Amino acid sequence: MEEIKAFAAEFDPQPFHLDEEAARDTIFKGLAASGWHTAALTMRLLVAGELRPAGGIVGAGFDDFRWPRPVRPGDELHLESEVLEVRPSKSRPSQGLIKVRTTTLNQNNEAVQIQIGNLVVPRRNPGGFEQATAGELQ
Amino acid sequence: MEEIKAFAAEFDPQPFHLDEEAARDTIFKGLAASGWHTAALTMRLLVAGELRPAGGIVGAGFDDFRWPRPVRPGDELHLESEVLEVRPSKSRPSQGLIKVRTTTLNQNNEAVQIQIGNLVVPRRNPGGFEQATAGELQ
Repeated sequence: MEEIKAFAAEFDPQPFHLDEEAARDTIFKGLAASGWHTAALTMRLLVAGELRPAGGIVGAGFDDFRWPRPVRPGDELHLESEVLEVRPSKSRPSQGLIKVRTTTLNQNNEAVQIQIGNLVVPRRNPGGFEQATAGELQ
Repeated sequence: MEEIKAFAAEFDPQPFHLDEEAARDTIFKGLAASGWHTAALTMRLLVAGELRPAGGIVGAGFDDFRWPRPVRPGDELHLESEVLEVRPSKSRPSQGLIKVRTTTLNQNNEAVQIQIGNLVVPRRNPGGFEQATAGELQ
């Protein structure tokens, strides 16, 4: 609970993230973590996890990003990730993009965050892959 | 620079966010803030800003979310926000949704983050608005 409040005090100082009493009469009906706290903790779990693209985990953006339910004090989070697509970058031939869906779940296996992100990775053999899939890239 | 490293050590411990030397040979070609740090700072600026929906700034998710360029040590960030749409929630009659584009800019007015978020707000008169725009809601 103190972590939730400390993060909120620094980055998202709104009553429902800072104080149990004040949070009761809000849309959250109780103290809830900032969504950005959930996102940051998701990143920490992702960096510690098995998905290790060459060059690190570098996000360019998201096709989808949602918080279907809040994170509460005491919740324990874990991740499920699935690689949806791997493709060369059209604008930067030396790079590729990996599309990954990452779902952040609480201890009841309820999704608290769903993101479909596009990660930037270096390419092993820039050019070669373009030739092989020229039709697709035009 | 210390803030960038401290945030990264806690939430995004990768070399390009932690150490200038190590960052030089990465895709960022120098120390860069974690995108989640940029997102969290954007939230802080948003909470301190003029957009003050009833019930607070509560995000449900994003239609678009991108980091077009990294934030560097010493960068100063500011925001531009535009309300794109206001509509009643279909699934929750007591709530409405505000679609807001928020662009986070550095001191050179270069966009470092672009988000189009859907904020959840309480409705003043649930039901009344539905009648007035029933055609649209069906």
